Amino acid sequence: MSTVSIIGNGNMAKAIGGVAAAGGSAVEYLGREGGTVNGEVVVFAVPYPEVDAVIATYGSALAGKVVVDITNPVDFATFDGLAVPADSSAAAVIAAKLPEATVLKAFNTNFGATLVSGTVGEETTTVLIAGDDDAAKAALAGIVTAGGLNAVDAGSLKRARELESLGFLQITLAAAERVSWTAGFALVA
Amino acid sequence: MSTVSIIGNGNMAKAIGGVAAAGGSAVEYLGREGGTVNGEVVVFAVPYPEVDAVIATYGSALAGKVVVDITNPVDFATFDGLAVPADSSAAAVIAAKLPEATVLKAFNTNFGATLVSGTVGEETTTVLIAGDDDAAKAALAGIVTAGGLNAVDAGSLKRARELESLGFLQITLAAAERVSWTAGFALVA
Repeated sequence: MSTVSIIGNGNMAKAIGGVAAAGGSAVEYLGREGGTVNGEVVVFAVPYPEVDAVIATYGSALAGKVVVDITNPVDFATFDGLAVPADSSAAAVIAAKLPEATVLKAFNTNFGATLVSGTVGEETTTVLIAGDDDAAKAALAGIVTAGGLNAVDAGSLKRARELESLGFLQITLAAAERVSWTAGFALVA
Repeated sequence: MSTVSIIGNGNMAKAIGGVAAAGGSAVEYLGREGGTVNGEVVVFAVPYPEVDAVIATYGSALAGKVVVDITNPVDFATFDGLAVPADSSAAAVIAAKLPEATVLKAFNTNFGATLVSGTVGEETTTVLIAGDDDAAKAALAGIVTAGGLNAVDAGSLKRARELESLGFLQITLAAAERVSWTAGFALVA
């Protein structure tokens, strides 16, 4: 049985942990205060502004791990763009800070409620996964699909930029009440 | 009856013309050689690299019109990004070249087949519309919904950047055979 370590305890942390547990993974929740990281897959389920503190706290314990960045680095001061460079992404920024880890982008295009329900409208919820390591992507996809969701390889970690644009767009649509926080974009194969 | 002018004669031109005609609009197709523009709404249904030639040909005939940019400015040399500045969009570039027109971004997140069928999987096809002029967006939304599709206001023209990221992502997924060219992202309200 694989172990998934989730740093954070909010709605997204619980929703992702629920998917992993439903698929048979052992799930451990870790706090911002640090601790032993038993999982090979470590999900940063914290808001983007807290990521640096997580990296500072866990540091070398993340070496060799698959780190999953789920953040949408929205600039909440303007709500009109992202708080990362236009030609980059939160995932790329995090990967640069964790050269000994394998960073994936995933879950940022899923509202938490769609991870819990397993559906977006009539469609099964799809988790889009971007990263430069095929084995790491396959491992995460296995956890996701065992938990009853679809997983789709969205390409290299460079595609995190597009995933973060999609996540931001979806948040703006929900904030404007044009879609529900329990729905959003579904991927139809 | 409103008139919609469509510049171009490819699959997207015909698909968008079909939607407008189904909704009761008069539709005229214009070529790259120029001609009289009768529509208040003018759709640039040409690939992004041809837009400059369209602007050069039609020029002042576009003053006062609602110009709809449907392009996905993919950098086909690398297939790894867009051929517009990272902090901008094709729509913003076009708007700067047409200061006397009202430029909207729309249809770039829809594969042509989903405009023809009216569905993405089980969901009604949604046309996302970004722009800075609410009346122009409402006019285009009216044409789209009369034709049987959903229309959603995606915000200001600045959101064209996110729409183009979404369009590019969807194209990469189809090119990698992870989704069909007849499906893709559906928006569930």
